[in-house]
Amino acid sequence: MKAALMYGAGDVRVEDAPIPTLQEPTDAIVRTVRACICGSDLHPYHSMPGSEHGIRMGHELIAVVEEVGTAVTTLTKGDFVVVPFAYADNTCAICQEGFQTACPHGGWYGTPDTPGLQAEYARVPQADGSAVVVPGVDPATASDELLASLLALSDVYLTGYHAAFMADIQPGQTVTVIGDGAVGLSAVLAAKQMGAERIILMGRHVSRTDLGREFGATDVVAERGAEGVAKVMALTGGEGSHVVLEAVGHMPAYEQAYGIVRPGGIISRVGVPQYEEAPIGFGSLFGKNARLAGGPAPVRAYLEQAIRDVLDGTINPGKVFDRTVGLDGVPAGYAAMDAREALKVMVDPALR
Amino acid sequence: MKAALMYGAGDVRVEDAPIPTLQEPTDAIVRTVRACICGSDLHPYHSMPGSEHGIRMGHELIAVVEEVGTAVTTLTKGDFVVVPFAYADNTCAICQEGFQTACPHGGWYGTPDTPGLQAEYARVPQADGSAVVVPGVDPATASDELLASLLALSDVYLTGYHAAFMADIQPGQTVTVIGDGAVGLSAVLAAKQMGAERIILMGRHVSRTDLGREFGATDVVAERGAEGVAKVMALTGGEGSHVVLEAVGHMPAYEQAYGIVRPGGIISRVGVPQYEEAPIGFGSLFGKNARLAGGPAPVRAYLEQAIRDVLDGTINPGKVFDRTVGLDGVPAGYAAMDAREALKVMVDPALR
Repeated sequence: MKAALMYGAGDVRVEDAPIPTLQEPTDAIVRTVRACICGSDLHPYHSMPGSEHGIRMGHELIAVVEEVGTAVTTLTKGDFVVVPFAYADNTCAICQEGFQTACPHGGWYGTPDTPGLQAEYARVPQADGSAVVVPGVDPATASDELLASLLALSDVYLTGYHAAFMADIQPGQTVTVIGDGAVGLSAVLAAKQMGAERIILMGRHVSRTDLGREFGATDVVAERGAEGVAKVMALTGGEGSHVVLEAVGHMPAYEQAYGIVRPGGIISRVGVPQYEEAPIGFGSLFGKNARLAGGPAPVRAYLEQAIRDVLDGTINPGKVFDRTVGLDGVPAGYAAMDAREALKVMVDPALR
Repeated sequence: MKAALMYGAGDVRVEDAPIPTLQEPTDAIVRTVRACICGSDLHPYHSMPGSEHGIRMGHELIAVVEEVGTAVTTLTKGDFVVVPFAYADNTCAICQEGFQTACPHGGWYGTPDTPGLQAEYARVPQADGSAVVVPGVDPATASDELLASLLALSDVYLTGYHAAFMADIQPGQTVTVIGDGAVGLSAVLAAKQMGAERIILMGRHVSRTDLGREFGATDVVAERGAEGVAKVMALTGGEGSHVVLEAVGHMPAYEQAYGIVRPGGIISRVGVPQYEEAPIGFGSLFGKNARLAGGPAPVRAYLEQAIRDVLDGTINPGKVFDRTVGLDGVPAGYAAMDAREALKVMVDPALR
């Protein structure tokens, strides 16, 4: 089968790889309907040291079940499923508390044992906990729009949703979203769903912020750094934003976040931090009782409700996809996202 | 009148100072019934550079109103009041949201304009927002025990309470308190009030941890650093603590906190951070969706209920005071707290 590998910064290749087979009785083997490229894939695309062997990339997937292990009880061959970007048993105490990305029996795709999902087939570990059936939909006849929105649930939309959920957004609040990438725009949509009254989107790519307005943004701030902070403070009467959703992961975005958060407010981060240490003392968070939340989204916790919301038309998060490639087009897809020519690239293995 | 000033690390002196007078129509002048020395006063006691003029110290007070400005409506001469450690108007949007320590019209004691409260008299700015009447109590005849518990509401107990409140403690949870100082012990008492099932107190001074057990601690961990983390992880079945209340403020305490917090759990800090930058990336907070909360306690938000709880005997937070001095004894009081010979020192201006 075809699969995408990264060999170093800027170096993505499509190669032949063995079709995966069952390794554990809790595994499922699935055939890709759609995969995609994540904004977080751009971090190694910028910084990965050269490697002889390459790393199988990708962690977002909608797929059809081909085969299940003997211990799998909730899936059968032919089921159409959404696969969250991290696998988990979904039965342990940590999962039951809603933090499946920290499941002690779970893990990430893109490791030697669990290859990435930008490929024609995939092995899904802990399949009962890590794949959810989409009822009543045949992927062979479903619209591209519906497939895009279901694919968005494997990571991007529910990552934006997680930011909003962890910020405990209350109706009537002002929410500022930092970042006009696909996760930031998803966070706008989620904040709108939760009843935010005012949604300020910080971003400077007009085609993206236009989609942000369609998703619910009431204000757009193109300025960054101190100017951006000043603009948001002016928009909020000098008091700051109740909630800040940080969907970038770089230090300047975090610095903007604590600059604009209101006393007692919440910064919720879902951009993977490209730093370990950052200001949290009296001058940044502590002095104004600002709170910090966020982390890798436990997609599984939100997935069943989100599938219902997509199927009944409440949300249409697939609008973040603006380009589709076949597997051979994956390297060009990385390049297009990196150059900001594409917002988010979908992968359809049936395309040649 | 007598007042305590700090001139540098380890250098506290008691001097004559002018009795304060009304400066704004929103001021009140009060006569001290009891003041005290705070654990946070020990930070400058360790590190303050030498100064020619000294800084008037203290920010905790119960007092009798002597005189009020023309704009003060809730207080009259003779009222017995608790004075929170920061002043605030208690009417602005930030105050109404419960974050009075960030009031744009508020501030701190111990500045040239607003001298500290370890003195015989004090000026309380924004008096309507910054002093709450204790109904039906005459300080001249009240028991020492009652006065101690009311004094504890001006800072120490409600700072511990704030840690617990911001951590949103749910009945049945495991709460770990880092620090066996007066704030840490107060946090134990508050966590118990909120229904924590298991309360692990990290501290190594047996007389203090004994009071912690009386306040509700179910386990005591004397180990620190990696050993302390391992002990708490073992006590929690390897999963970690739902809530960590950090009542120290030094980096090793914060490092312990993120080492023992459970995935999705909350670290709530009320020890004033003696650092600005600290780990919050994938390896510390983000990877396990751990949350961070806390800051200077908005005592005013909790004070009316807490006064009722003290008056009806629900809580007895004054037990953290284990020594009382007159104003002349304040320098010795600092030394005793610094040497950990005293847990928390009360100041009674009537003592000679």
